[in-house]
Amino acid sequence: MDADMISTNICPLEWRYGSKEMREIFSLRNIVKTYIKVEAALMAGLVEAGLAPRDCVEVLEKCSENIEVREVYELERVLGHDIASLTYLLGERCGSCGGYVHLGATSYDIVDTTWALLLREGLGIVKRKLRGVLEDLADLSIRYREALMPGRTHGQHALPITLGFKLANYVYELSRSYERICSLEARLIRSKISGAVGTMAAWSNKGLEVERKASEMLGLEPHVITTQVAPRDGFAELVSVLAILASQLDRLALEVRELSRTEISEIYEAGERIGSSTMPQKRNPVISERISGLAKIMRGMVMTALENIALMHERDLTNSSSERILIPHSLVTIDQMLEDTQRLLKTIYIDVEKMSENLKLTKGAIMAEAVMIKLVEKGMPRHRAHKKLAELTRSMGNRSLEEVLEMDEEISKILSKEEIKAALDPKRYLGSYRGLIDRAIEYMGQVLKKC
Amino acid sequence: MDADMISTNICPLEWRYGSKEMREIFSLRNIVKTYIKVEAALMAGLVEAGLAPRDCVEVLEKCSENIEVREVYELERVLGHDIASLTYLLGERCGSCGGYVHLGATSYDIVDTTWALLLREGLGIVKRKLRGVLEDLADLSIRYREALMPGRTHGQHALPITLGFKLANYVYELSRSYERICSLEARLIRSKISGAVGTMAAWSNKGLEVERKASEMLGLEPHVITTQVAPRDGFAELVSVLAILASQLDRLALEVRELSRTEISEIYEAGERIGSSTMPQKRNPVISERISGLAKIMRGMVMTALENIALMHERDLTNSSSERILIPHSLVTIDQMLEDTQRLLKTIYIDVEKMSENLKLTKGAIMAEAVMIKLVEKGMPRHRAHKKLAELTRSMGNRSLEEVLEMDEEISKILSKEEIKAALDPKRYLGSYRGLIDRAIEYMGQVLKKC
Amino acid sequence: MDADMISTNICPLEWRYGSKEMREIFSLRNIVKTYIKVEAALMAGLVEAGLAPRDCVEVLEKCSENIEVREVYELERVLGHDIASLTYLLGERCGSCGGYVHLGATSYDIVDTTWALLLREGLGIVKRKLRGVLEDLADLSIRYREALMPGRTHGQHALPITLGFKLANYVYELSRSYERICSLEARLIRSKISGAVGTMAAWSNKGLEVERKASEMLGLEPHVITTQVAPRDGFAELVSVLAILASQLDRLALEVRELSRTEISEIYEAGERIGSSTMPQKRNPVISERISGLAKIMRGMVMTALENIALMHERDLTNSSSERILIPHSLVTIDQMLEDTQRLLKTIYIDVEKMSENLKLTKGAIMAEAVMIKLVEKGMPRHRAHKKLAELTRSMGNRSLEEVLEMDEEISKILSKEEIKAALDPKRYLGSYRGLIDRAIEYMGQVLKKC
Amino acid sequence: MDADMISTNICPLEWRYGSKEMREIFSLRNIVKTYIKVEAALMAGLVEAGLAPRDCVEVLEKCSENIEVREVYELERVLGHDIASLTYLLGERCGSCGGYVHLGATSYDIVDTTWALLLREGLGIVKRKLRGVLEDLADLSIRYREALMPGRTHGQHALPITLGFKLANYVYELSRSYERICSLEARLIRSKISGAVGTMAAWSNKGLEVERKASEMLGLEPHVITTQVAPRDGFAELVSVLAILASQLDRLALEVRELSRTEISEIYEAGERIGSSTMPQKRNPVISERISGLAKIMRGMVMTALENIALMHERDLTNSSSERILIPHSLVTIDQMLEDTQRLLKTIYIDVEKMSENLKLTKGAIMAEAVMIKLVEKGMPRHRAHKKLAELTRSMGNRSLEEVLEMDEEISKILSKEEIKAALDPKRYLGSYRGLIDRAIEYMGQVLKKC
Repeated sequence: MDADMISTNICPLEWRYGSKEMREIFSLRNIVKTYIKVEAALMAGLVEAGLAPRDCVEVLEKCSENIEVREVYELERVLGHDIASLTYLLGERCGSCGGYVHLGATSYDIVDTTWALLLREGLGIVKRKLRGVLEDLADLSIRYREALMPGRTHGQHALPITLGFKLANYVYELSRSYERICSLEARLIRSKISGAVGTMAAWSNKGLEVERKASEMLGLEPHVITTQVAPRDGFAELVSVLAILASQLDRLALEVRELSRTEISEIYEAGERIGSSTMPQKRNPVISERISGLAKIMRGMVMTALENIALMHERDLTNSSSERILIPHSLVTIDQMLEDTQRLLKTIYIDVEKMSENLKLTKGAIMAEAVMIKLVEKGMPRHRAHKKLAELTRSMGNRSLEEVLEMDEEISKILSKEEIKAALDPKRYLGSYRGLIDRAIEYMGQVLKKC
Repeated sequence: MDADMISTNICPLEWRYGSKEMREIFSLRNIVKTYIKVEAALMAGLVEAGLAPRDCVEVLEKCSENIEVREVYELERVLGHDIASLTYLLGERCGSCGGYVHLGATSYDIVDTTWALLLREGLGIVKRKLRGVLEDLADLSIRYREALMPGRTHGQHALPITLGFKLANYVYELSRSYERICSLEARLIRSKISGAVGTMAAWSNKGLEVERKASEMLGLEPHVITTQVAPRDGFAELVSVLAILASQLDRLALEVRELSRTEISEIYEAGERIGSSTMPQKRNPVISERISGLAKIMRGMVMTALENIALMHERDLTNSSSERILIPHSLVTIDQMLEDTQRLLKTIYIDVEKMSENLKLTKGAIMAEAVMIKLVEKGMPRHRAHKKLAELTRSMGNRSLEEVLEMDEEISKILSKEEIKAALDPKRYLGSYRGLIDRAIEYMGQVLKKC
Repeated sequence: MDADMISTNICPLEWRYGSKEMREIFSLRNIVKTYIKVEAALMAGLVEAGLAPRDCVEVLEKCSENIEVREVYELERVLGHDIASLTYLLGERCGSCGGYVHLGATSYDIVDTTWALLLREGLGIVKRKLRGVLEDLADLSIRYREALMPGRTHGQHALPITLGFKLANYVYELSRSYERICSLEARLIRSKISGAVGTMAAWSNKGLEVERKASEMLGLEPHVITTQVAPRDGFAELVSVLAILASQLDRLALEVRELSRTEISEIYEAGERIGSSTMPQKRNPVISERISGLAKIMRGMVMTALENIALMHERDLTNSSSERILIPHSLVTIDQMLEDTQRLLKTIYIDVEKMSENLKLTKGAIMAEAVMIKLVEKGMPRHRAHKKLAELTRSMGNRSLEEVLEMDEEISKILSKEEIKAALDPKRYLGSYRGLIDRAIEYMGQVLKKC
Repeated sequence: MDADMISTNICPLEWRYGSKEMREIFSLRNIVKTYIKVEAALMAGLVEAGLAPRDCVEVLEKCSENIEVREVYELERVLGHDIASLTYLLGERCGSCGGYVHLGATSYDIVDTTWALLLREGLGIVKRKLRGVLEDLADLSIRYREALMPGRTHGQHALPITLGFKLANYVYELSRSYERICSLEARLIRSKISGAVGTMAAWSNKGLEVERKASEMLGLEPHVITTQVAPRDGFAELVSVLAILASQLDRLALEVRELSRTEISEIYEAGERIGSSTMPQKRNPVISERISGLAKIMRGMVMTALENIALMHERDLTNSSSERILIPHSLVTIDQMLEDTQRLLKTIYIDVEKMSENLKLTKGAIMAEAVMIKLVEKGMPRHRAHKKLAELTRSMGNRSLEEVLEMDEEISKILSKEEIKAALDPKRYLGSYRGLIDRAIEYMGQVLKKC
């Protein structure tokens, strides 16, 4: 909520969700500005190929300066086509160079190359914020390397872990998303300068030259070949990769939501806002819940992106309306999710004492595997040891596992009291957690160097 | 594109897609206005139950008049909660009645009841426009009742139909969607006035009275029981039903897109806009393509709506952010699709001559089944007749089926030239098309009376 | 796992998931059997219309008796078409009546009418099991009507509820699904007897008669009009409605999974199986987790069903392969989910004591709203009371809310010790829970009468 | 349809779709066989780390030989757990080594490592078949490099292309999928050997050694860190990447389906099967339609895979049931699609004459852009030339564009008859198609070397 909010808005991405910087990228004004930039690069290509007069790049950059977004879209009302409207305005205002504007190009030379430029910027922001999240997670992972807590599977206490170990898993998982973004950029961030059906026919035998120069000016590699449009698998990959990232952030948010339950209280959001309009005592994990909520939006968008791949022949237009919604919405949504995650990690409250208290909740039963392993070491076959421990833990009633073990005839013959105590010590049953945390952070380091 | 477009917009539903009337319903200002309306209805419930002073309804209606949308959201910046912000403002401005505002209610009493009111209006528009589409389709179906054309399966000419028959199928299909909307309204358009966990505890033993009066004022039936929120299956049903409708409109749009192919040219969009920025000769079915494009957006949203059902316990907040996007987007999107379909049907150009010309394209092979049936009538077993015709149609080369049949020894023993001619006449092989068209239109009539 | 499992299976729906009765319905042998049944009904229609000899129905029923599934599919290998293979076999074996088999019909007259019959049976099972689930839930809701427990929002203790109240919400929610199934049957369970492009042309002017008689024999209403196939919105509605139901069962399963957490332990699955291959102490909610897992499968299938709507012209074949998978998988999956839910409800262990213990976990803070309401009753404005309670609950430290309230100067002036005690009693702050439970069960009763 | 089909099957992937080799990989028997292989590798790790006697690897390989799939699943009926059942059987049969089987491992050490092995094989097949498709496409692209045909956008004739150029686009697009598969393998095909919560605690300080040795034996890199399970983003990436590939094959199939329309007839499936059970003349593109149908199944599965990412804490079990369906279904489905595409490409009939005939359908209007460009070359501003051509093409009536141009006063002043003729020659307006085809094929070559 800020100055951007206007009372007629229906889409919360206009003001409520997403950062200003991300919204600016996909704003109408920046889209039109980038269209013009691409038209200028195209003109440079035409000039290079001898298809337009030398001075037309400079002329175009000048005469396009005061084209207003509103003009373009008012003209679109008449012409039914935004790029046609823009090129009409350029044609009118750029003197004799006007006759060379958009020459031999098709609308999607401009649109798809513009998407490439906007997505390069947008993914730049995504990567920067994801890097921030990763670094915060790595820091927390190191800080809480030794902070004991229950590991939980099926919602049940399973075995002890440390918070640092838990978080190192997120470091690994999110690094994999970073890696995927690097990988997809090479397929997605490419210029499309190839004319109406992709043959570059309008530029005679000079098409490759036009493409090379225009792409160079924009700092883009061109697509290897295209129809009227760039291949849509690139966009589907983009939205899939972002939805995977969103689902990973959802997992982290779910972690916080669960660990901040009244009964668990190990971690919670430490913001100072009103939790509830009617129950003042609550500490609602609202940032995490927003992350999980927006993740559902991201997942739904994948379907749309996948359906856009099978365009007919040299293209049909059905990707156009859907991408006008899909592309900005997916980037702004992930942007909000990353911002929220950063905010979450920077303000999260971690109650180390409560974690260690919870570890005792099962009165030692959480250590059952450790005892089982001890028994196997002493020669009991694994499946018999497993069965034994299952019986013992289920017969504990109000007693601790230590008591039960000590009182069991069979066990007490095998294990001394000291050995039982040692086997029940969570600190001694953390395996290779340190090495694994290190591996995760090292992996992150390698990935962050990739792009 | 109109006055609503502003150069910072990132969501095309703000200006490009959707009608003004639909956008107005889901605008921030109308949402806040409706929140206030629900707070007033709640106050009426409190008064009825003796929990607030008699005059507080009137007072609230007055003192809420000059609450600005912007104020609410500026306060939300501090409080982190929009309903809390609104009730704070009302509390401040409504004198002694301020102390009774929102009493015993939870935010989602207001939010969910507001959704019910907005969706009642929104679905009202959807139904009106769908009714318009249905009536136009029925009219066209009657007008082109006898207009012969090839029926096509697998993209292949199959058997003759009439355009009226084709369109009557859409009348039936879309009527089924209208029926579904009527059916879901009873589950979706309900008030939710039940407090923080749904027990109405804050109103002591007067909860049902508060609910009854408040609901009555808004003209809503209440939900039978709720948690903190109305059950989310209603929203999932809404989005599913709209996505089914969208996919049916997509099917109609696809029909137009295919029939307007250069090679077919039976039907096309008769707008007068620029078809292509570079190929001036084309008649692109851009409205239909937009319909098909937006249908992909609608389908994706179903996933989000389904995921919102499984909220934890008495609710978690993960539906909130996603529904802020989902609900307005789905209604505005379907609104644009219906508007486009109406425009399409009102301006569509139908080339009856070309249809009948295309019918001759297979030189009679399209009538193969008719001949086969004739042979069976004359005593040939069905599968032998089928095999016979398959051989004959595949051996036609450049000859017509009539010639081939006349020259075939076996056939010419069974069928006279006149019988062959008759069997090959498409007008005589349309079965019960008239009765079926009538049934479809009658079905529509019944459905449109339902709600 | 049972005799059906064979070591070459790749699909767990063949043996692991789903009941025998549901699997039998969608087995190849039953599909072929039903194809034959529909061919016989069609023959009855032909006879009725005078298009086939009187005795052919009887003949067909006889001669089809020993057609083996395997024969059909071995022939399909040659002919590339299962219905063509079946009708070929019938043609060969049914003497002179063989020549009338399938006369004038198209494959999808048989296939779609078969789907209608199989789905009528399949939905019959779904309704029976859903009814069972509803009745079990209603029973539990009555049995635990007064069993106090914390109501939870955002995972946080919010206000007291009773388990009966919680479950009554599921009674309401699932009744809505039952209602939706009743509603969709009228659109989905219909015969399709209309020939190659839906005009019934092959039956000359007798088509409506053929359709009437055949449909009557099968106990089906016919579709009002069709293309070569029944409209696919019916199948999309089916899968959507089942996915909504699945998501509701997912919500119930999530409830159990969360309430059986080590820290909460209010409810758990009481099966006797090995919980973990390595941690013998655990009580994993594996049935509930399976329900939640399969719900994800159900949701994904909605996309496929929606995409099947927009078939081209009088149909393309792209629904065929996808529905061969989609329809059986969606019915068998929901069947397993309903069976699991029944098993869950029948064996669930409910720890009433633990519930009431957990209610005390916040030392009274869960009752903050009740105190706030009391203060408002005594004349404090709502938002000031809200703020007051927020401060007090956050300053509790290790003290109980009772202590804090008693020690607060402002409060102690307004509320006596007895009033504080009363306000903090959860039993007194349950509002209209009894009436709401009754409403839910009554609603269920009405819905179950619908179909 | 083959020996695998049994009359109780409900899933067509058991026999109808997918190759034997792919089905074998995901068959129960191979899954169990691979479980055992992983248990043996784990044993090797234990031995290496000194945690099990030297001879136990050999012993285990022997004693596991005659474990029957059926035994495992019959025992699962009792134990409720497949891995527990297998390890129980191994424990029973492997003498003193039985006591070391599965020691310190968790079920998902076995399950996830097994998925990695099966997916390595499965993706191997996918890559081999995709390579085959790519090579066939490249061959066709070269063979039909010069075969003129209409390029189509919006279903409208746009500009001439060659079939080779069209197909080269698919070469590029599908190569991108191949690239994505190579890229995801590094994240997906990894062993998971880390025990109950991922810390390797049961192996004391020897965990990394156990993991290294076991992974080495299987030829796998281990995951860097895990919870109880491997991170699920890998599976989501897998299904997304396959769904993207499926959608690209869908696009190719749609190309064939459209180009084989009765009115177009440029390309069609040349199989010899019955096209229709009632219309013998038709050439239905049934392979292509099956590809498009199965693509819808693939897209739906992405949703399930994405939802599996957000598992709770160190894991919940909700991925288990869904992946048992998801993983085999997605691999077998894509396998069928690739097989179908290969069959399609190997048997496709291409009618070069018809293509060149269709090119003339618009009487030269398809060359409008070429004329426009010529006019610009001669000095007319682009947008005026565009407008001029739009007028001329719309005024053609029955005349050819050549006639219209020759008769137009303005044009005839600018262009000579020869220049008009030249501008209207499609062969001269193909731009850089040869260079672009070369680029596509070269790109494919590079990609195919990647993995």
